[in-house]
Amino acid sequence: MKNVAVIGYGVVGSGTVELFEKNRESISKKVGRDCDIKYIVDLRDFPDSPFADRMVKDFNTVLEDDEIEVVAEVIGGIEPAYTFTKKALEKGKSVVTSNKELVANKGAQLLDIAHKHNCNYLFEASVGGGIPIIRPLNKCLAGNSIEQISGILNGTTNFILTKMIREQMDFESALSLAQQLGYAEKDPTADIEGHDACRKICILGSLAYGKHIYPNQVHCSGISHIAAEDIAYAESAGYAIKLIGSVKPVGDGRVGDNEKVSAIVCPRLVSKRNMLSTVEGVYNAISVTGDGVGDVMFYGQGAGKLPTASAVVGDIIDCLKHKGRSVMISWEDNHDENYVVDHRTVETAMYVRINSEDAAALKSAISEMFGKLTYIERPNRPKNELAFITPTMTESEIDANLAILSHSADIMSRIRLL
Amino acid sequence: MKNVAVIGYGVVGSGTVELFEKNRESISKKVGRDCDIKYIVDLRDFPDSPFADRMVKDFNTVLEDDEIEVVAEVIGGIEPAYTFTKKALEKGKSVVTSNKELVANKGAQLLDIAHKHNCNYLFEASVGGGIPIIRPLNKCLAGNSIEQISGILNGTTNFILTKMIREQMDFESALSLAQQLGYAEKDPTADIEGHDACRKICILGSLAYGKHIYPNQVHCSGISHIAAEDIAYAESAGYAIKLIGSVKPVGDGRVGDNEKVSAIVCPRLVSKRNMLSTVEGVYNAISVTGDGVGDVMFYGQGAGKLPTASAVVGDIIDCLKHKGRSVMISWEDNHDENYVVDHRTVETAMYVRINSEDAAALKSAISEMFGKLTYIERPNRPKNELAFITPTMTESEIDANLAILSHSADIMSRIRLL
Repeated sequence: MKNVAVIGYGVVGSGTVELFEKNRESISKKVGRDCDIKYIVDLRDFPDSPFADRMVKDFNTVLEDDEIEVVAEVIGGIEPAYTFTKKALEKGKSVVTSNKELVANKGAQLLDIAHKHNCNYLFEASVGGGIPIIRPLNKCLAGNSIEQISGILNGTTNFILTKMIREQMDFESALSLAQQLGYAEKDPTADIEGHDACRKICILGSLAYGKHIYPNQVHCSGISHIAAEDIAYAESAGYAIKLIGSVKPVGDGRVGDNEKVSAIVCPRLVSKRNMLSTVEGVYNAISVTGDGVGDVMFYGQGAGKLPTASAVVGDIIDCLKHKGRSVMISWEDNHDENYVVDHRTVETAMYVRINSEDAAALKSAISEMFGKLTYIERPNRPKNELAFITPTMTESEIDANLAILSHSADIMSRIRLL
Repeated sequence: MKNVAVIGYGVVGSGTVELFEKNRESISKKVGRDCDIKYIVDLRDFPDSPFADRMVKDFNTVLEDDEIEVVAEVIGGIEPAYTFTKKALEKGKSVVTSNKELVANKGAQLLDIAHKHNCNYLFEASVGGGIPIIRPLNKCLAGNSIEQISGILNGTTNFILTKMIREQMDFESALSLAQQLGYAEKDPTADIEGHDACRKICILGSLAYGKHIYPNQVHCSGISHIAAEDIAYAESAGYAIKLIGSVKPVGDGRVGDNEKVSAIVCPRLVSKRNMLSTVEGVYNAISVTGDGVGDVMFYGQGAGKLPTASAVVGDIIDCLKHKGRSVMISWEDNHDENYVVDHRTVETAMYVRINSEDAAALKSAISEMFGKLTYIERPNRPKNELAFITPTMTESEIDANLAILSHSADIMSRIRLL
């Protein structure tokens, strides 16, 4: 059967076709019947492609062909991906995708349409590239109350931070190296400001807690303000700085109508004893804490042509195996603006770096202000510089203290601890 | 519905009941209908248990109750687990298990019975405790040809090795500490000789390559002969010594009738650049290499009451959601004695430590014997001791060389590299 269509022949699309065709024999065996890609939809021409005979320009060709059971949407962005996905699902064709932006913004709705039409909307590739995380979270860990998910969800920023830590590069040089190597886009905003990681933590949080979390509900800060000084202090104190997306329930963590969540993307000081601190370069890792399982971690390449294709093809196979049956991934839509709590109400410890001519004299006043405080050192610390880690307290309390402190010192940097 | 029975109220069984009851409300929501544990089967009496009213002694009570859809077999061992499992499946009741011994020895047969009766035999808990690995390997990575699986599959031995590496304990002291802490059994043979890890790599290999691998087909060596000297050499040369179960296809790695596999459990020198080297204490980790995904790693607590229960309960939920539908995990039975190749025909690099009065004089002869050789050092190396790492070659070639060398030196230790 020629029952699969791939929409979008970019990096992930061409990887999907390549991997599917390479392993087609074993895939057909796993599905239990012969399977193949019938159409590749792209507006561009690829006359030299070995798959030129399968290229079509009009999505309606796919939609109107009853032989097509599964559509792999690997276009990215909201439109036309959203319209294509909706139309395919309404025809009872399953859709699989790597499109985190679409899932993070329209997931609840598209899952609902899939259920109503006895087909599936699967998106293993939307978080962590090829790393299995959606299905493990939804199935293997289903017996747990999920206490926290924290992840290094963006390879570009992790590459930049690794270069800053390991080779003392500054941010700008590390970014431009990432661009040279093809790890960062020309316009790197979505990566370095944390928007990409934000979409992914929204998807994981929606799945873990059963209600849609929208990207615009999540406080998000990137890595462009991380200075060499911060890296040095973190290193000396036994931490690595990583861009972390995290989500956890606020309150007792049990299912209930009054449940709220905390969701945030920001750089964090991660203890060297935490496995996440050991994740380097373009690799991603997601740590999940459950009340049964304790901590589990999933690690691998979070992006790239074939790793992402691996997840897309895995989902295609699952859809082909479950033709006409919805596999029951779902969450409720949610427009409660208070579901994601204000990050300032959440407790955290904070690393703070300040400059002041009176630094030495300020030390005891700062200690008194925060209670039990830990000052940390770096090699060749200038006399007008201080760095410390606050006790765990709400951010609004920390903010209030720093507002007072700002009368006698410049607040140079503040980074949450994980 | 009271539709679940737990067979065996030991560590995993009581954890399963505890976790299921704690999260029963959210579990019922995930399944889409009310679910509960009706029976706990154990020959012992537990009069003080809060679940005393659900305790029964006769498995037939479960078998003959049509309300029971899922049986969690957490007895361990082959019998009576095998008979109970077979009977339940033949009645169309799904069975989930943590019983690695049973899956490794009877998996193909029990999966076949499950399919014939439109029910499921799931065993996520049999490998890596709560770490999701069976479902990710079977589903998420289904689009890949699996090039290799290597895992730290036994927490007890990893705890012992960690103590030997981090605190310079000798093997006997580390083992006895593990016993004191409850990590090792009174009779620790199954752990330290690698039999437990062997069952787990058989399960992973059967799943990845589609044919049953039996424990008695797999070369298996444990950690009791690892000496402090070996740890010291490995450390100096940038390796950690870990007990690794591994399986890979021999040949081109594609599905085919002539496919064979290499499967082996043994201590290995693992490069510090490999994430597996960073896994410490009782934690487990499994690294999977696929032609699409590259390397992915799954990490967490590989044993223990609630972590293992997490996987059992996840499987119970999956069975309840798929009542009357087989989820198509399967592999062929296989009695080809040559399917798992003789480990001596497989290429590896080998760490070797020798003693000889003529050590210094032997160096050049040994180099010539092996071709390009790397001598490694340790602090305070005695003059009569040498340690080296061979080039990658078949084990039979290495054996032949060491046989010659044994005329002029004592071969004290030989450990494969990963």
